Amino acid sequence: MKTVVVRNIKRADAELVKRLGSIGVSTAHEAYGRFGLMKPYLRPVWAGAEAAGTAVTVLAHPGDNWMIHVAVEQCKPGDILVVGCSADNTDGMFGDLLATSLMARGVRGLIIDAGVRDAKTLREMGFPVWSKAISAKGTVKATVGAVNVPVVCAGINVVPGDAVVADDDGVVVIRRKDVADVVAKGEKRAADEDGKRKQLAEGKLGLDMYSMREALAKAGLVYVDELDED
Amino acid sequence: MKTVVVRNIKRADAELVKRLGSIGVSTAHEAYGRFGLMKPYLRPVWAGAEAAGTAVTVLAHPGDNWMIHVAVEQCKPGDILVVGCSADNTDGMFGDLLATSLMARGVRGLIIDAGVRDAKTLREMGFPVWSKAISAKGTVKATVGAVNVPVVCAGINVVPGDAVVADDDGVVVIRRKDVADVVAKGEKRAADEDGKRKQLAEGKLGLDMYSMREALAKAGLVYVDELDED
Amino acid sequence: MKTVVVRNIKRADAELVKRLGSIGVSTAHEAYGRFGLMKPYLRPVWAGAEAAGTAVTVLAHPGDNWMIHVAVEQCKPGDILVVGCSADNTDGMFGDLLATSLMARGVRGLIIDAGVRDAKTLREMGFPVWSKAISAKGTVKATVGAVNVPVVCAGINVVPGDAVVADDDGVVVIRRKDVADVVAKGEKRAADEDGKRKQLAEGKLGLDMYSMREALAKAGLVYVDELDED
Amino acid sequence: MKTVVVRNIKRADAELVKRLGSIGVSTAHEAYGRFGLMKPYLRPVWAGAEAAGTAVTVLAHPGDNWMIHVAVEQCKPGDILVVGCSADNTDGMFGDLLATSLMARGVRGLIIDAGVRDAKTLREMGFPVWSKAISAKGTVKATVGAVNVPVVCAGINVVPGDAVVADDDGVVVIRRKDVADVVAKGEKRAADEDGKRKQLAEGKLGLDMYSMREALAKAGLVYVDELDED
Amino acid sequence: MKTVVVRNIKRADAELVKRLGSIGVSTAHEAYGRFGLMKPYLRPVWAGAEAAGTAVTVLAHPGDNWMIHVAVEQCKPGDILVVGCSADNTDGMFGDLLATSLMARGVRGLIIDAGVRDAKTLREMGFPVWSKAISAKGTVKATVGAVNVPVVCAGINVVPGDAVVADDDGVVVIRRKDVADVVAKGEKRAADEDGKRKQLAEGKLGLDMYSMREALAKAGLVYVDELDED
Amino acid sequence: MKTVVVRNIKRADAELVKRLGSIGVSTAHEAYGRFGLMKPYLRPVWAGAEAAGTAVTVLAHPGDNWMIHVAVEQCKPGDILVVGCSADNTDGMFGDLLATSLMARGVRGLIIDAGVRDAKTLREMGFPVWSKAISAKGTVKATVGAVNVPVVCAGINVVPGDAVVADDDGVVVIRRKDVADVVAKGEKRAADEDGKRKQLAEGKLGLDMYSMREALAKAGLVYVDELDED
Repeated sequence: MKTVVVRNIKRADAELVKRLGSIGVSTAHEAYGRFGLMKPYLRPVWAGAEAAGTAVTVLAHPGDNWMIHVAVEQCKPGDILVVGCSADNTDGMFGDLLATSLMARGVRGLIIDAGVRDAKTLREMGFPVWSKAISAKGTVKATVGAVNVPVVCAGINVVPGDAVVADDDGVVVIRRKDVADVVAKGEKRAADEDGKRKQLAEGKLGLDMYSMREALAKAGLVYVDELDED
Repeated sequence: MKTVVVRNIKRADAELVKRLGSIGVSTAHEAYGRFGLMKPYLRPVWAGAEAAGTAVTVLAHPGDNWMIHVAVEQCKPGDILVVGCSADNTDGMFGDLLATSLMARGVRGLIIDAGVRDAKTLREMGFPVWSKAISAKGTVKATVGAVNVPVVCAGINVVPGDAVVADDDGVVVIRRKDVADVVAKGEKRAADEDGKRKQLAEGKLGLDMYSMREALAKAGLVYVDELDED
Repeated sequence: MKTVVVRNIKRADAELVKRLGSIGVSTAHEAYGRFGLMKPYLRPVWAGAEAAGTAVTVLAHPGDNWMIHVAVEQCKPGDILVVGCSADNTDGMFGDLLATSLMARGVRGLIIDAGVRDAKTLREMGFPVWSKAISAKGTVKATVGAVNVPVVCAGINVVPGDAVVADDDGVVVIRRKDVADVVAKGEKRAADEDGKRKQLAEGKLGLDMYSMREALAKAGLVYVDELDED
Repeated sequence: MKTVVVRNIKRADAELVKRLGSIGVSTAHEAYGRFGLMKPYLRPVWAGAEAAGTAVTVLAHPGDNWMIHVAVEQCKPGDILVVGCSADNTDGMFGDLLATSLMARGVRGLIIDAGVRDAKTLREMGFPVWSKAISAKGTVKATVGAVNVPVVCAGINVVPGDAVVADDDGVVVIRRKDVADVVAKGEKRAADEDGKRKQLAEGKLGLDMYSMREALAKAGLVYVDELDED
Repeated sequence: MKTVVVRNIKRADAELVKRLGSIGVSTAHEAYGRFGLMKPYLRPVWAGAEAAGTAVTVLAHPGDNWMIHVAVEQCKPGDILVVGCSADNTDGMFGDLLATSLMARGVRGLIIDAGVRDAKTLREMGFPVWSKAISAKGTVKATVGAVNVPVVCAGINVVPGDAVVADDDGVVVIRRKDVADVVAKGEKRAADEDGKRKQLAEGKLGLDMYSMREALAKAGLVYVDELDED
Repeated sequence: MKTVVVRNIKRADAELVKRLGSIGVSTAHEAYGRFGLMKPYLRPVWAGAEAAGTAVTVLAHPGDNWMIHVAVEQCKPGDILVVGCSADNTDGMFGDLLATSLMARGVRGLIIDAGVRDAKTLREMGFPVWSKAISAKGTVKATVGAVNVPVVCAGINVVPGDAVVADDDGVVVIRRKDVADVVAKGEKRAADEDGKRKQLAEGKLGLDMYSMREALAKAGLVYVDELDED
C-alpha cells in the first residue's frame, strides 16, 4: 500500500447523486440488489441528519487524524468524506474545527469508521456525521496513510468518486457506474411504495396485496385454532 | 417446532393492561418480583415512546420477515407485535409499510429482537418500536416460522396474550394470569413512591427513610474521618 | 479493601471546577495531556447534558445500590457522584428517587459504570446522568462496598475530590492538584481554537495553518494525479 | 414468578437421549428443523467436551449461586444442569466444589448463561461445562430464584426434562415429546452424510450431488470468464 | 453488484506464496507496511493451524451457504477460500462435508466472516479454518451472491488471486503484484529478528539495541527515583 | 499525568507472592473480600498458564509499545509486567522479542489490556501472557507514557509493587500491604475446601454441609411436587 494522495478522481454525476439522496438509504439499498450497506454500528451523531454526495476517501491509522487534514484539500463541493481505519478505533478523530474547514469547502458530510468529538457543536452547525462512537479522546499526527485510494469503511469497500447516501437508516455506497441504474429503480420503487402504503392504510393485508398465501401453504405453513401443547 | 399460525389466543384483560401502561416498566417490573424484563439492548427507536398491549408473537428466521406479514392478520386493536428470531440478527426486518398496516389494525407497537428501518418515518408516524438495531438491510421472504407460539425475545419467553409494557426504560412481559396482581402491587408501589419523593425532595435521607443504618453497621460498614493510606 | 465510608475528603476548588466546565470535556482532556478520559461507552442519558463538579465516589457491587444510598449523605453542593462497580453490570442501579435526593443536596450529576432507570423522568428533572446502559432491572441492598475511596469507573481511577467534567463528548477526570494547570492551559487552548476556527471558516487549509506539508513529505507522503492500478 | 422448587419432573427417555448424544449437536439441530440452538456465545470450558442428558433447570439472579446449591438435590443420574440468569452476568457462579457434588450424583454436565471458575480443575476432572465466560468473580447467596421451572438460557426456553445435547458446536435443546422424532431423523441424516462424505472425498462436486445447477441459473447466477471491471 | 461467477482469475505465484507462509502473518504484515490485516475477531478453529494460499472469493448472504457450494468448483490446488457476508452473521455456514470437498480439490484452508460447525471433525481432519464464531446453526440455500469478485472479509477488501497467509496471529492479505516485494522484505526482517532475539536473550536491552534513549528524552520522558505523590 | 519512569518501587514480599501463586486466583480473590479481580475479557494466550509476581506497571498509548521497551529495564526477577492503555486497543503490542527480553531478566509473565502477537512462539517459549486479544497488528513508537505509576488495567487500578496472580480463571491484584493477610486467609480457605470437596464427593449435599435449608425457607423458597401451570 503506497502512502499516496490521488488528486484526480472521477466523481459520480452530481444531479444523479442528489436524486439518490431523495430516494433515501433503505430504498436505494434495495434498488442496488441489497448490496453496499455499511454495518449498522455507524450511527448519525444527531438524529435526522441526511446527506448525499461523492466519496473522497481517507485511509487513516487508529488514533491518528493526520490524513484527514490532508484530505480536506482534495474535497470539492458536493463531496462526502469517508474515513476508514487500519485497525478498530473509537478515538475522537474529527471535531468542530475540521467540520468548519469541510463546510467552507462545500462538503456535505462525514462518514468515519472511528469516533468523533464536539458532538454538540456538530449538531449546532448542522454538519452531518455518521460515526462508530462519540469520544473526546485526542489523536496524534504521526503516521501517514492515503487519500483517494479504495478504503474499507464499516464493511464496505469505497472507491473514490462513489455515490454515498446516509440518513437515520445508515449509509449506503453505490459504484459510480451503477448510480443511474439505481436512481431509476429506486425512484420506481419509491413510487410503488406510495401506492402500497395507501392500500395498507386502508386495511388491506400484505398477505393479499403481495399474494403470499399460496406460497406460504406450499412452504408448509398451517393454521390452527389452538396450540395443543407448548 | 411446527410451522404454524395459531388463530385463537387468550389475551390479558385490556383494561388491566392499560393500567399497567400507566404504572410504567420500572415499577411494573418491581411489582412482578423483578422478573420479566427483556435485555437492555432493546431500545426505543425514538425517545419518549410508550406502549402497553397484549402480545401477538412471531418466530422469524434472521433476515426473513415473511412471518411478520403473516402475523399482521392475527392482530387486533390493543395488541403489541413481539418478534423473536431463531439466530442473532440486526437486519431491518420492519419498516414504515408494515407499521402502516399495523396502525390500520389498531396495534400499539412493535418489539423486535432484530433491526428495523425507516426510523425517521416511524418517528413521524408516532408508531412505537423497540429494536436491537436500526439498519436499512433488506430481508427475504424465504422460510416459514410461526405465529402465536411462545417465543424467546431478548431473553424473555413470551406467551401469546401476555401483557407487554414498554417505555424509555425497556420492555417488561407479564403472564396473563399475573396481570391483576401486578397492577395492584404496582399502583400501590407508585403511590408509595410519590410520598417518598416528597420527603427526599425536602432533604430527608434515604438512609433514614428506609432505616438502613443498623443493617449497614451489622453488615460491617464503618465510618472514618480520613482514609489512612493506599 | 475495607468496607468503609470516608467522611472528610479534600475537594478541588469550586471556582476552578466551574471554569473547567466552561472549557468542556474535549478541550480539558487535551489540556491534561490526553489523560483522564473515561471509556466512551459511558453516554449521557439525555443529549445536551453538561456537568462539572467534585467527585464523591462509590464502590458498589453489581445489581446492588445500597452504597449509593449511603453516599448521598456524604454529598455537598457542587459534587458529582461517581459510581464504580466490582464487576460488569447494566442493571438500573439509580432512578428518579435517588436523583431527587441528590438534587435536594445540590449535587450536579451522576457518573455510573452500570445502568440507570426512570430515563424519562431524569430528563424531565434536568438531572444529568452518564451511564453504561438504561435498564429497568431492579437491584438489591445486600452487600456493603465503600464510599469515598479511590474507585475505577469506566477505565479511570477516580480519587475522591477529583474534578469531573462531563458533556456530550464523554467524561474526564482531573486530579485535584492538576486542576489549576488544566484550567490555565484549557482556557488558552479554547482561545486559540477560536482564532483557528475563523481562519478555517474563511477557507484556509489546516495543512497550511499547521504547516504540515514539510513533515508529510518527510514522512513519505506523495501526491499523484491518478492511481495507476487497483 | 414463584420462588419454587419443583420436585417431580418428567424426563426425556434416557436411551433416546443417549442416541441423541451420538448424533451430535449440528445434526440434531438440523433434524429438529433448525430450532432449539442456544446462542453461540456459550462455549465449552475445555475443547472436546461432549454431553447429553435431561434438563434440571435453575433460574438464578446475577452473581448469586444459591439456587445452584438447591438444584443439586433435584438432580438424578443422566441429568444436565441448565442455569439461566435474570440479567446478563459473567461472574464465576460455579466451580470445582459444585462440580464434585454434581459428579457424585451422576450429572453429565452444566450449561450456564453466566461465568464459571476453577477452569483448570474442571478440565482435569473431565466435567463438561458450557458457559458464557470464565471468571474468578465470587458470588453471594442472597436471593432465591427457582428450580425446575421453564427458564430462558442463552436464547432458548428450556423446560425441565427436555433433552440437552452439547459439544464443540454448541448446545441444542429438544422438547421431551419431540426426542423420538429427532433421533429417527437425525440418525437417518447422519447415515446419509456418510454416503455424501465419501462421494465428496472422491471429488464429486456438491453442485452435482445436490443438483443445484438449474436452480442457480433460474435464480440468476451467471458464469463469466473475466470480470470486466471492479 | 452482479450475481456472477468469474471463472478465470490471476493467482499470485505459488512458490512466493509458499515462502510467505514460512514468514508468518506478523512479519508479513510488517513487511507490507502494516496493511492488509483482517480484524482480530477472526480466530483459528483449532490452535496451531497455519495456511498460505491464493484467494478464491465468495460473497454470501447471512445464513445462506449456497455460494460456497458454487465456489468449490472454482478452486484449484493451493487456493484458500475467502468468504465475505453481506451482513453480520455467526451461523455455521461451513462444516465437514464442505471441508471434505475442498480437501479433495487441494484447497489449503478457509477464511470466513461468519460461523462454522463440525469444529471437532475439522480439527481431526486437519483442515485449517479461521472464522468469527463456531455455531451449529444451519443455513439455507436461497439467495445467489457472487464468486471471484472482490469481497470485504473481516475489514479487508480481498481481490481474487491475492495471497492469503493465516496462523495463530490472524489473517493477512497481500495483493498479487506486491507479493514478491513482501517476501523479500519479510525474509530480510525474519533474518534480522533472529539476530536481535539472540542479543535480547543474552540480556541486551531493546533500549540500547534500538538506540531509543535519546529519542525518549527528546520526547519528554524523565526518570525519577520515587513518585512524590499519586 | 507526568511522562515519567519511576526507578524505585516497593515490591510485595517475594515469598508471600509465591504462596499466593499456590493459592490460585479464585481463592485469593475470595480471601481478598472479592475485590481486585480484572475483567474476564483478559484471557491467557495459552491454556494452563500460571504466574505470580510483583507488578511493574506501564501506561501506554493505543497501538504504541514504546513504553514497554522502556519498562523492561525496570524489571527484576520475580516481576510481572502490567500494561494499561489510555484507550481501548487490540493491536499486537507485544511479541516474542519482548518476551525473550523479559525472560532474560527473570520476569514471570505479562498482563496487557491490549493485544499480543507471536502467540505460537509465546506458547512454545512457555512465557505466560494474559491479553485482551491476539493480533498481528503492528505498533508504532511515537508517544511517551509512563512506567511504574499507578495504572488501570482491565478495570483494576494497579500500584507498582502490588502482588499479581494469574491463571486460567483470570488475574487478581492485591495491594502490597494486604498480601500477608490474603495469604493467611487464602491458605486457610484452600485447606477448608479440601475437606468440603471430600464430603461432596461422598454425596453430602451443599444444602446440608452449609446449613442452607432454614435460610432458604425464611427467604420464601417453597417446594412443590408439580408445577400447576407455566
